[in-house]
Amino acid sequence: MALKTKEEYIESLRRLGTVVYLFGDQVKDWVSHPIIRPSINSIAMTYELAHVPDYMELFTAMSHITGKVINRFTHIQQSQDDLKRKIKMLRVVGQKTASCFQRCAGLDAINTVSAVTFEVDKAVGTQYHQRFNDFLKYLQDEDLVCSAAMTDPKGDRSLPPSKQKNPDQYLRIVEERKNGIVVRGAKAHITGAVNSHEVLVVPTRAMVAEEKDYAVSFAVPNDTKGVFFIYGRQPSDTRRLEASVMDVGNINFGGQEALIIFDDVFVPWERVFLNGEYQFCRRLVELFAAFHRASYGGCKSGVADVLIGATSLVAEIQGTHTASHIRDKFIEMIHLNETLYAAGIASSSEGHQLPSGGYAVDSLLANVCKLHVTRFPFEIVRLAQDIAGGIMGTMPSEREFKHPEVGRYVEKYLEGVAGIPAEVRFRLIRLMESMTMGTGSVCLLLESIHGAGSPQAQRIMIDRETDWEFKKKLARRIAGLD
Amino acid sequence: MALKTKEEYIESLRRLGTVVYLFGDQVKDWVSHPIIRPSINSIAMTYELAHVPDYMELFTAMSHITGKVINRFTHIQQSQDDLKRKIKMLRVVGQKTASCFQRCAGLDAINTVSAVTFEVDKAVGTQYHQRFNDFLKYLQDEDLVCSAAMTDPKGDRSLPPSKQKNPDQYLRIVEERKNGIVVRGAKAHITGAVNSHEVLVVPTRAMVAEEKDYAVSFAVPNDTKGVFFIYGRQPSDTRRLEASVMDVGNINFGGQEALIIFDDVFVPWERVFLNGEYQFCRRLVELFAAFHRASYGGCKSGVADVLIGATSLVAEIQGTHTASHIRDKFIEMIHLNETLYAAGIASSSEGHQLPSGGYAVDSLLANVCKLHVTRFPFEIVRLAQDIAGGIMGTMPSEREFKHPEVGRYVEKYLEGVAGIPAEVRFRLIRLMESMTMGTGSVCLLLESIHGAGSPQAQRIMIDRETDWEFKKKLARRIAGLD
Amino acid sequence: MALKTKEEYIESLRRLGTVVYLFGDQVKDWVSHPIIRPSINSIAMTYELAHVPDYMELFTAMSHITGKVINRFTHIQQSQDDLKRKIKMLRVVGQKTASCFQRCAGLDAINTVSAVTFEVDKAVGTQYHQRFNDFLKYLQDEDLVCSAAMTDPKGDRSLPPSKQKNPDQYLRIVEERKNGIVVRGAKAHITGAVNSHEVLVVPTRAMVAEEKDYAVSFAVPNDTKGVFFIYGRQPSDTRRLEASVMDVGNINFGGQEALIIFDDVFVPWERVFLNGEYQFCRRLVELFAAFHRASYGGCKSGVADVLIGATSLVAEIQGTHTASHIRDKFIEMIHLNETLYAAGIASSSEGHQLPSGGYAVDSLLANVCKLHVTRFPFEIVRLAQDIAGGIMGTMPSEREFKHPEVGRYVEKYLEGVAGIPAEVRFRLIRLMESMTMGTGSVCLLLESIHGAGSPQAQRIMIDRETDWEFKKKLARRIAGLD
Amino acid sequence: MALKTKEEYIESLRRLGTVVYLFGDQVKDWVSHPIIRPSINSIAMTYELAHVPDYMELFTAMSHITGKVINRFTHIQQSQDDLKRKIKMLRVVGQKTASCFQRCAGLDAINTVSAVTFEVDKAVGTQYHQRFNDFLKYLQDEDLVCSAAMTDPKGDRSLPPSKQKNPDQYLRIVEERKNGIVVRGAKAHITGAVNSHEVLVVPTRAMVAEEKDYAVSFAVPNDTKGVFFIYGRQPSDTRRLEASVMDVGNINFGGQEALIIFDDVFVPWERVFLNGEYQFCRRLVELFAAFHRASYGGCKSGVADVLIGATSLVAEIQGTHTASHIRDKFIEMIHLNETLYAAGIASSSEGHQLPSGGYAVDSLLANVCKLHVTRFPFEIVRLAQDIAGGIMGTMPSEREFKHPEVGRYVEKYLEGVAGIPAEVRFRLIRLMESMTMGTGSVCLLLESIHGAGSPQAQRIMIDRETDWEFKKKLARRIAGLD
Repeated sequence: MALKTKEEYIESLRRLGTVVYLFGDQVKDWVSHPIIRPSINSIAMTYELAHVPDYMELFTAMSHITGKVINRFTHIQQSQDDLKRKIKMLRVVGQKTASCFQRCAGLDAINTVSAVTFEVDKAVGTQYHQRFNDFLKYLQDEDLVCSAAMTDPKGDRSLPPSKQKNPDQYLRIVEERKNGIVVRGAKAHITGAVNSHEVLVVPTRAMVAEEKDYAVSFAVPNDTKGVFFIYGRQPSDTRRLEASVMDVGNINFGGQEALIIFDDVFVPWERVFLNGEYQFCRRLVELFAAFHRASYGGCKSGVADVLIGATSLVAEIQGTHTASHIRDKFIEMIHLNETLYAAGIASSSEGHQLPSGGYAVDSLLANVCKLHVTRFPFEIVRLAQDIAGGIMGTMPSEREFKHPEVGRYVEKYLEGVAGIPAEVRFRLIRLMESMTMGTGSVCLLLESIHGAGSPQAQRIMIDRETDWEFKKKLARRIAGLD
Repeated sequence: MALKTKEEYIESLRRLGTVVYLFGDQVKDWVSHPIIRPSINSIAMTYELAHVPDYMELFTAMSHITGKVINRFTHIQQSQDDLKRKIKMLRVVGQKTASCFQRCAGLDAINTVSAVTFEVDKAVGTQYHQRFNDFLKYLQDEDLVCSAAMTDPKGDRSLPPSKQKNPDQYLRIVEERKNGIVVRGAKAHITGAVNSHEVLVVPTRAMVAEEKDYAVSFAVPNDTKGVFFIYGRQPSDTRRLEASVMDVGNINFGGQEALIIFDDVFVPWERVFLNGEYQFCRRLVELFAAFHRASYGGCKSGVADVLIGATSLVAEIQGTHTASHIRDKFIEMIHLNETLYAAGIASSSEGHQLPSGGYAVDSLLANVCKLHVTRFPFEIVRLAQDIAGGIMGTMPSEREFKHPEVGRYVEKYLEGVAGIPAEVRFRLIRLMESMTMGTGSVCLLLESIHGAGSPQAQRIMIDRETDWEFKKKLARRIAGLD
Repeated sequence: MALKTKEEYIESLRRLGTVVYLFGDQVKDWVSHPIIRPSINSIAMTYELAHVPDYMELFTAMSHITGKVINRFTHIQQSQDDLKRKIKMLRVVGQKTASCFQRCAGLDAINTVSAVTFEVDKAVGTQYHQRFNDFLKYLQDEDLVCSAAMTDPKGDRSLPPSKQKNPDQYLRIVEERKNGIVVRGAKAHITGAVNSHEVLVVPTRAMVAEEKDYAVSFAVPNDTKGVFFIYGRQPSDTRRLEASVMDVGNINFGGQEALIIFDDVFVPWERVFLNGEYQFCRRLVELFAAFHRASYGGCKSGVADVLIGATSLVAEIQGTHTASHIRDKFIEMIHLNETLYAAGIASSSEGHQLPSGGYAVDSLLANVCKLHVTRFPFEIVRLAQDIAGGIMGTMPSEREFKHPEVGRYVEKYLEGVAGIPAEVRFRLIRLMESMTMGTGSVCLLLESIHGAGSPQAQRIMIDRETDWEFKKKLARRIAGLD
Repeated sequence: MALKTKEEYIESLRRLGTVVYLFGDQVKDWVSHPIIRPSINSIAMTYELAHVPDYMELFTAMSHITGKVINRFTHIQQSQDDLKRKIKMLRVVGQKTASCFQRCAGLDAINTVSAVTFEVDKAVGTQYHQRFNDFLKYLQDEDLVCSAAMTDPKGDRSLPPSKQKNPDQYLRIVEERKNGIVVRGAKAHITGAVNSHEVLVVPTRAMVAEEKDYAVSFAVPNDTKGVFFIYGRQPSDTRRLEASVMDVGNINFGGQEALIIFDDVFVPWERVFLNGEYQFCRRLVELFAAFHRASYGGCKSGVADVLIGATSLVAEIQGTHTASHIRDKFIEMIHLNETLYAAGIASSSEGHQLPSGGYAVDSLLANVCKLHVTRFPFEIVRLAQDIAGGIMGTMPSEREFKHPEVGRYVEKYLEGVAGIPAEVRFRLIRLMESMTMGTGSVCLLLESIHGAGSPQAQRIMIDRETDWEFKKKLARRIAGLD
């Protein structure tokens, strides 16, 4: 069977010679680094649950190319039901990690490239689809993670790739050789970049003829020569380096964002999936966007479930959970959170078959889903902070909590309703702090805005996906004009 | 085949001796009354489309009791797909009528009573389900409309039914006879009450033991002795009595709300579906609510489609439709409107089978759907009025527009971009006025708040349907507490 | 003393030969017309309160040109305190009429033209300011109403005045004579146009050199040759023509919007206040906008006070006013409404002196005020409809309420908490209907969007009035960049 | 003159023997501690600006008790104008520090206690006001900072102080001695607690007769025996301990929250301002709340000015600042931010004189102000993050930026529009990170919710301050009911 255990996954990372920089040093044993490890644990959860009986059905699927049982995170969706299951699976991992678990971007990317290579081949007679299927078979059989490297640094955003002062602001082909191509550039804000096995590069926007060199898609192993990773820092990240564990909040799990440098990297032909066919970049970007925007309805609602649960416990500890205004805020949190999920489900349930045979979500509804994701988590967080109280910004550190002299004062005044140890409140408040103002807020807030494309990208797609003529015809008829 | 044409439907209403009061008179030929007729036209659309090839599949279904092809508006849903089709069907009728088309309440009520009679029988050994199926077979075979009469006047809402000064503020059984029961009371705000063939009465809230007499459900023909209807008035209703047609806005279609008086009405046993089993009232109310709250994701998004279309045309006429801030407002309108639809679809797609064999929507998501319906249409309307401009509140009447002397001035100054007759703008502005401040605003705004239950009812259900313990467990685990 | 009584005001209107069209006829006795009269009553309130001891101080002021006691509605504000008093005065009239009382537009226009004529004279050596003061003295001494005619029909809004296919889409000078000018065009959506004594015309936008003919400001009596008025219709307007008074809702008061046609109207030099000085149009428009946008913080909060009061009474009658979720909605209504007022007060309190000696509001805050006015009333209305219930769209007419046979049923089932006559509820629901979906909704909703300029106009001004460089400097310093 | 320089202020702190715990240790040289020092710098700004000619007028006032020139932060406001100046002063310090500068809570507290001691004396014949004035004179003459210690830990919030399992959950008098009282308890979330000279304790809620011991107000020096401080930790706080300065974001300034323990502290009579007069606790709390809620309209808008400025610079660097959707977001940020300020100004401008002679803000408008503060900063932050992009959560550390090998890659790909050093972008992004997800987010987000009372407290006051009867009377009159 093609399913790795979580231990095998972690072990497999150690075997890679991935080059990672963090806080000014190249980190050799990055798999054990306390700042990096939680993000590895998050991905590991996607392996673990595939072996847990209760979740097995949701976390596995049958490969459409090999017929084997595979991890659903490597599956090309074959039905509306597959699309829905993906959303449900993402919600579960969000609930189990309370963080970005990073593996969905690659999943959405392989579904995209699978479809688009088929369409490119059909349109211009290339052979990308078979190449891609070979790569996919390898991913599925080995149960690997691939990151989706889409976003370029972009430099001056008022200018297209071809007009940048620095031509490398968008990743591009700098040389074509007999056996492959050489690429240069960077991909920024890449989720789960470091703890993946492979990086799948795709263009970040529609391209025109003079931007052919930027119309490139390929996959290489993470430890390919010329590829290296610069780890991004996040709020409160160094708490994981402190002795105290309780101040961390989310003890075991976390997300990860990195800048990937491609310093004249050679890619052999068998791993090249787009090579100058600029006219398909828009299609690729929009299809990926639709997949990934729907995904956010699953993962973010799962992460917010944890925040809502923590808030609920804190309200109980503080003796406020039955107050009508508190209930009202809880209801609002649920209402907003389930809306994200509902839109993810609806876009899946309304999915359609692609020429390649795979299934795509409804793009209009997927964009609606993501646009809510750029808003509602902020209100959910605001309500969580409202319910929990100011303590989230004023609570002493674990070291005072356990201090031989002042510890008893901290404990005494942290107590809520009788009978619940102060530590419970301490840990939950720290979790809420981390999810709303600390490391976790990158996942729940900032990434909710920009992941899978910034809000304006969703708005443009909503405009484009709307059948305005149809609506105008409806109105004309009602007004007696036709 | 059991499908009536729209003409047969209208004819069948004439054969009923329904007693209707409007503006101080009993209206004999109410089927032709210009204020009532548009609401009949709206229901007629549900008949018409069942015969139109493009819509036939969506508007018909196979009866689970007779196996015959029936109008989907009389169908007991048998799958998630059936639930989704219902939402799509409602959106289509909303698009074709730009108004409340009234027939969905009865549809949701028969699905509810079908399920609950089964459950009551099973629990307490009654025979309601078979009775109900007989009634249902009649509805399906004859392709009839039944209204759903749920809301009682309620008197002093701080008091339960049994504590009201006037015991008739909730409809109740006042006498039990050998062959049936006698009921007294009223049902208020009943949509499509007058132009239905039958009225299906259900309780409006959970009841306790001392409220047994209020725990009653039954169906009677609209022209039953003791039943009469008092038509509700709405903004701008009398424009339909004026000579000018253009000032009406929505020329042909409209909604309808009425107060139904039950003045000691006899109901034979074969039409009684609940008779004192107070402990099932909550179940009935909540199940109906879930069905009907999901429905609003279909119908209201369909109605708003027309408003969006009209606004789009008006923006073109005024030369503003490409301005970035105008596009942004259109996108927001679509975003909000599709959210309603997405939630309706999601609650259907996540539906589950009931003991009776029928299917129910996901209640949490259905309540989320409806709670958005209580908010977003107001923002959609605000944006529509923003785009259209102040003219919607200042435009002269059709009579000035066609006036021999001043008409040419009105026409001259109503012109927008060159080449579009001023009448087009006139009609569309009137349509927008009617949908946002006139008769149609009852449907798009007020009814969006209160139909299928007021917002607080949705909030209570969202609280109740949330698995708080599950979420708390998630948080405890992440915080390292378990 | 220069103060007219309300009776004198009404009488003075009768003496004018104003030409008014309504529903296809020229209305001779328009002062008594049941659709027009309520708007006259609203303005009359501004006269009445100037004689009521409790309000006298607020409603009168000392003329800065004559030193006489005048109605504050004709006063050029001389201090921050004057600006604040204006806001308070407007709130009072809003509270007393629950409608647009129309006289503030003229007030803001005279303050604008007073300031701008001074500035034009100073810059280009004209003599407009003295001319205008002569006109102003006449207004003050006779205690007259002048409407502010700013908005042109605009035709194709993507084109400037000089590029319109129909050059009259913006009012313009078509001839210059020895003793004055001849103008042609129309002014649309003019509040209180008909029941004013004078119309003060100002340009609607910034103009460029080739639009000199459109850069015109003047005042003429309402019954000037070539001037005539076409009355705009509004939702439910004809209820005032029905026999029943209760169905009207707001029994005595209303607003008024009209289209004014200037069919080659001669204006003598002494009434011309701008004649081709196109470079001052922007200044004039922006100054008027600031004054008028602040005004909305007063009048609309006053009108909403009535809606909130009505909703409060209805909640009491229905037995819901102490429920926590109802209280919460009331609090939100107050919160939003007081924000409008606060912004109006703040922009006044931060007002500054103009070169002419008069005072102007803070333009940034005035635009902030108005931008809220384009949003919050919709939410206030939504909450009011939420609290009041569906009855607002389903209640029978007054004729059923008083019907010899069915009246007792209507009354019986309209009763709320014991002891309050059903008529009280009936009247209040009708008032709420009229304010939220009927005639009054034009004032509270649509006009809140577009009066004093559409939201986008406020947004542009907010951008322009912000000192971005200052804010950037602040950030640079904090980031250690300077 | 009574004005200290900023250096004198810092020096004066060193002379105090304040006991502070942070990260498990008592910090001896807390004045120089890198985590604490920024909060000292923020308060120091209030001293510095009183000596800067441009700000002198705003930052000083004339003492109403001594007639001397004092720092306005120690002034009892004597007019509406004084109230407005306070708001303006707070905005300036917010702009200069981009953080909570802590000194306003004490200012609002002295204004409150000054008023309430007067009222208590008048009502029950005590001598608190003179005592308080002696204390005040000392504060003013020495130009000291006093913190406002109001919030108790509260334990189980469903229970009043007298019913808590631990009676010390609210600070209380445990002993009365001949020369004073002994108090025990804690005050939590106390802003600027450590870097003040004095702590002014006031009750946190209304009290009843059996809670007399909790009805206590007093002031003691920070280094009083039995008083000690436990410093609260905040997101990213330890970045200030790292070598790199750029990663900090807000280089020099910060806020401060601490838990103050009162471990049986003796307070001499001359420093006791309330001693059991429980019936005045509500008055005291509500008056303080009104003052402090208005203050937030000043300080938070000032802090947000810096965020808006930083966002504006970042947009320029990224080449997006002229895009219409970006401008729209900036306008919205300004709109929301100025609303906070407007409400602060309005509540001041509508202030009224108290029996003591001092001035209080309008309580309704102050609560409206603060309720907006609990919402709008979240939307401002969301928009800032939207404009700035995902980079805020993915940017490498300063150490990679300056790294000998990888630094040039980071710099290369951080460049935006040509000609602006990457370091500018780096610093601004870090500032934005710190203000929206780091240490500064405690000030801008969490504290905006809970400082000066949580939202529900504002809602209750808005309900209480509304004249419902007046509004109901307005509605009755318009509906023709009176």
